[in-house]
Amino acid sequence: MNAYEKFIDCREKNNSLLCVGLDTDVGKLPQGISKDISGIYEFNKKVIEATKDLVCAYKINFAFYEQYGTAGIEIMKKTFDLIPHGIFTIADAKRGDIGNTSSAYAKSVFEYFGADSVTLSPYMGSDSIQPFLEHKSKMAFLLALTSNKGSADFQRLQSGGEPFYKHVIKRSAQWAGKDNLGYVIGATHPGELVEIRNEIPDRVILIPGVGSQGGDTAAVLKANNSGPAMINVSRDIIYTSHEADFEVHIRERAQYYKDVFCGL
Amino acid sequence: MNAYEKFIDCREKNNSLLCVGLDTDVGKLPQGISKDISGIYEFNKKVIEATKDLVCAYKINFAFYEQYGTAGIEIMKKTFDLIPHGIFTIADAKRGDIGNTSSAYAKSVFEYFGADSVTLSPYMGSDSIQPFLEHKSKMAFLLALTSNKGSADFQRLQSGGEPFYKHVIKRSAQWAGKDNLGYVIGATHPGELVEIRNEIPDRVILIPGVGSQGGDTAAVLKANNSGPAMINVSRDIIYTSHEADFEVHIRERAQYYKDVFCGL
Repeated sequence: MNAYEKFIDCREKNNSLLCVGLDTDVGKLPQGISKDISGIYEFNKKVIEATKDLVCAYKINFAFYEQYGTAGIEIMKKTFDLIPHGIFTIADAKRGDIGNTSSAYAKSVFEYFGADSVTLSPYMGSDSIQPFLEHKSKMAFLLALTSNKGSADFQRLQSGGEPFYKHVIKRSAQWAGKDNLGYVIGATHPGELVEIRNEIPDRVILIPGVGSQGGDTAAVLKANNSGPAMINVSRDIIYTSHEADFEVHIRERAQYYKDVFCGL
Repeated sequence: MNAYEKFIDCREKNNSLLCVGLDTDVGKLPQGISKDISGIYEFNKKVIEATKDLVCAYKINFAFYEQYGTAGIEIMKKTFDLIPHGIFTIADAKRGDIGNTSSAYAKSVFEYFGADSVTLSPYMGSDSIQPFLEHKSKMAFLLALTSNKGSADFQRLQSGGEPFYKHVIKRSAQWAGKDNLGYVIGATHPGELVEIRNEIPDRVILIPGVGSQGGDTAAVLKANNSGPAMINVSRDIIYTSHEADFEVHIRERAQYYKDVFCGL
């Protein structure tokens, strides 16, 4: 089973479009969890335990672990290892570099961490993405139109009557098929998502920006038009409670998003 | 002394524009060095010892260390610690993400590793770069026109009569001054470097692509027109010899590039 099939399988088994983002921050850990780096592992374990039947994927935000150096990398590796085998994993690392360097990054995310997929920046072009695509059982998600305000700075520049992010999608869609290449489209752009989904009906779209970032869930779901997608929520689920019974609240919040994503 | 001043100081002290890239690969280590991850540290130590009076900077390519997980991160940290305090360091990590995530990446490169500067991808726009610029004593190098073939895929798309990379430079130059923000321009594009240097005479330009990547050194130096720049060479210096006396050859090769960069 390749990564794409694993995603489809997990989405159907758990009947969920929800991806939970493990952007775990020591400063936001709830009561009863050590307020140090070891607490990140304890917390991630509880989050995964509380949500594993409600999600199609977990997205691990590399920066939150890298900031602690070797200790953070160790905890990130242990977190990947905690995730049940049937659940899709995303190395949210936004990598991309010249060929031999991208090959080493691919080795890091796919072999060392064992992630099913990785997020990549398209700026350096085809030969910066190709080394990831050579891992045929894995997936890459290319940044196209991101959820942040800064997405307007360059991604929306017009070239030949079309915004830059459309050039990224059109050109890169020739590099690999749906089993290996998907896209990141922020939930804050539902109007654009309608058009993008029409153009690439079979590609997996990773949609961040619901929850703390303010994306409109109903509009996003309508725009996605039941295409293959994962909708990521990080902070609004994992930091929903600072109390000792936080797991109960995290599960409730994940259940809420799962139901909203399936019910609209 | 901020990072910019440190660069100017080191460039003058060593009379060198040469940046040596530590893209250290276990498979290419020379005779007499352990052919395992501990060999990377031994080798980097020898390279730094052999070249430290010939360079203005060392560039550490994160991917080559990340592929080995915690052990690689430990060796990367120890490599940063080996570099003499007066020499400028570049965390070649090509990062960039939404605000709170970029803040964590900045903490990783500037605080954990203690790098003077970092390379960043501009794709996500101003708010993805801002958290790095808040570290006022450090520098960021934004990818503009990279050395690889894939740079033609998106960086050269025209918008409003100008290529995309020029929009990146013009817009981002408003985000910070020369002490905090420089650019990456590949040595494989000397014609474009002439124009870029005219437009941003006081910005530090990090120029990779000389050596194994085939950039024309004389053309690059002419194009740079004595502006503040570091010219990076990685493989063509560090893998110049597989013999047991590799340090002698590495020093000779670094001296060659230092002299060429100063003499033309």
